[in-house]
Amino acid sequence: MTAVRPFVVGIIGGGQLARMMHAASIALGVRVRLLAEEPEVSAATVVHEVMVGDYTDAETVRAFAADCDVITFDHEHVPTGLLRDLEAAGAVVRPGPDALVHAQDKAIMRDRLDALGAPCPRHRLVTDPGGLVSFGNEQGWPIIAKASRGGYDGKGVWKLDSPAGADTPFDQRTEGVQIIAEEFVDFTRELSALVVRSPSGQAVAYPISESVQRNGICVETVTPAPGLSDSVAVAAQQLALAIAHELGVVGVMAVELMERAEGTVVVNELAMRPHNTGHWTIDGSHTSQFENHLRAVLDLPLGDPSARAPWTVMSNVLGGALEDLPSALVHCFARDRRLRVQLYDKPVRPGRKVGHVTTFGDDLDDARKRARHASAYLMGDPNA
Amino acid sequence: MTAVRPFVVGIIGGGQLARMMHAASIALGVRVRLLAEEPEVSAATVVHEVMVGDYTDAETVRAFAADCDVITFDHEHVPTGLLRDLEAAGAVVRPGPDALVHAQDKAIMRDRLDALGAPCPRHRLVTDPGGLVSFGNEQGWPIIAKASRGGYDGKGVWKLDSPAGADTPFDQRTEGVQIIAEEFVDFTRELSALVVRSPSGQAVAYPISESVQRNGICVETVTPAPGLSDSVAVAAQQLALAIAHELGVVGVMAVELMERAEGTVVVNELAMRPHNTGHWTIDGSHTSQFENHLRAVLDLPLGDPSARAPWTVMSNVLGGALEDLPSALVHCFARDRRLRVQLYDKPVRPGRKVGHVTTFGDDLDDARKRARHASAYLMGDPNA
Repeated sequence: MTAVRPFVVGIIGGGQLARMMHAASIALGVRVRLLAEEPEVSAATVVHEVMVGDYTDAETVRAFAADCDVITFDHEHVPTGLLRDLEAAGAVVRPGPDALVHAQDKAIMRDRLDALGAPCPRHRLVTDPGGLVSFGNEQGWPIIAKASRGGYDGKGVWKLDSPAGADTPFDQRTEGVQIIAEEFVDFTRELSALVVRSPSGQAVAYPISESVQRNGICVETVTPAPGLSDSVAVAAQQLALAIAHELGVVGVMAVELMERAEGTVVVNELAMRPHNTGHWTIDGSHTSQFENHLRAVLDLPLGDPSARAPWTVMSNVLGGALEDLPSALVHCFARDRRLRVQLYDKPVRPGRKVGHVTTFGDDLDDARKRARHASAYLMGDPNA
Repeated sequence: MTAVRPFVVGIIGGGQLARMMHAASIALGVRVRLLAEEPEVSAATVVHEVMVGDYTDAETVRAFAADCDVITFDHEHVPTGLLRDLEAAGAVVRPGPDALVHAQDKAIMRDRLDALGAPCPRHRLVTDPGGLVSFGNEQGWPIIAKASRGGYDGKGVWKLDSPAGADTPFDQRTEGVQIIAEEFVDFTRELSALVVRSPSGQAVAYPISESVQRNGICVETVTPAPGLSDSVAVAAQQLALAIAHELGVVGVMAVELMERAEGTVVVNELAMRPHNTGHWTIDGSHTSQFENHLRAVLDLPLGDPSARAPWTVMSNVLGGALEDLPSALVHCFARDRRLRVQLYDKPVRPGRKVGHVTTFGDDLDDARKRARHASAYLMGDPNA
């Protein structure tokens, strides 16, 4: 006989994704336990039970995982070896290391997607600058060079217009990281296919979003992606669902896609956690990505991913000239009674993601204008 | 020069209202500090910074309030004298004691509403059973007797059909509590007018809800109240806004109304905090009562209170035969992909509010059926 106890979800990593997962957990009566990098990181100031420690230390993670029903993640950086040991010791880890490695290592991801027949840029693992040059000479310049591990928000990606820059990736890469040569895809825009899968195999696909990037960082999403044909949208959803199934993903997976002028798509990246391109779901869909991620890792039936409004626009707030975001809410809320805001309670540093705003409605232009105004204001543009 | 710091809201009381306020605070980047009755109460397991202590102890509350930008409440039981001392010491208390006393003391509330010309049942403060008998003989039986303080969820209210029961209220009342004799209003249903007011005087009114009570406890709300004429709805909103203005309320106030067969309304009770009849706003309106309460006490502009769907139904989950609510979510979520659930993470005890469910849509009958099914199942009815 055990007393009834709530579900306990351990989240490794204390960023804004953990913060928004915690907000979703409150409704479900789920208790969140957090392993945070520092006492004052974004999620650590809102979760009750916080352990501060190093997620690469096996001892720390094992102690953290004790009594958790499931361990999940704010980021994809926990070493898979450590997670395998954790599973061997009886912990439930979702997504598991065999899936997660595809979000950690782009070389493994590319090989696996090739094997699955998923559309990818042409690519090859190269071991030296000469390998990049050969690849470029064969495929035609420009090409893309990517670090196999550790890249994010545009970091670890180099566009090479000619053989001249072929040393750079090897000079700048971190010790032990491999370099992948990739075909330069002349895409017209980026799309995101967000899916959620549970251990029992149930899966849902959110509407496809258009993701607008600036300097490699997502600045805006529009859902559904404007002008996307139903057939391409459904094909993108099916592609993401198939990848999630084949890799055994549990929880949210975002498949970042590049759309070519002729309407075909290729896979750019995989992310196995709630994703920036899914932030619109908090206010815009029937079930947010954060709630569905929790439901997935707890093997609860997933909620309806469909949109509640014809158009939803999410605009990121990147650290800018304005430091006092809380006070700036006065202006934003006074101007727009329906504006939805998420502030992450992070110190403002240039270019850092410190919040986002969401608008929705029947009129895309209006929603976009409202979202852009608010995020620009919060980034310190007084004429926004 | 001070560093940018987030807003800090101190909430006194650790029940589900504080829990849901905290969920709303996360989006706004607001930090919540909690004064909880016990370490394991509903809100204490989800808020980072929790002080456990006695809210009637001046020393405790003063220590708690230090460094908070504003103090607000999960309940209305903090002694006004203590709050006045707190204000004198420089703390910001919202709603303030001069407003709050009208939610604490029904005798003071009735007198004030009379003075404002608000429609109330005929009433009189009585000092002994003879006073109740005289009132009943004058007004006609049955009559209602009410304890001036401390009543909730049907407690502290007696219906007297004849002089025979006139001793009961005086026998059962708590020491120092007065008894009010009130006209028995033969109402057809109860309505709730929910408003939010900020210190600068901005105010918003939510659509009027119908509140279904069983044994003095709210079990369901339907918004907007079905069949309510626009003129009565607007009059009820204006009445609530006028009361909020006259009493200087800051934050959410619920005015519980009784509707007579002929369509007129009288005020039953006032509550000055987020209210059970406003739980529908989390999923059903553009801005939840919890977010607007926080925005009000921080004097941020208020958000749009209007509904996002034609009909929203909230059904309370009261403690029943089922103890393991988390596991019961499997059934509820599998059956209804759009069901919204809030579990309060409280031990199940008979009749205790332990959660609620919300549904919305174009079809009231369908929404009501879905909400009733889910709440009945969570209360242990396997045939729900």
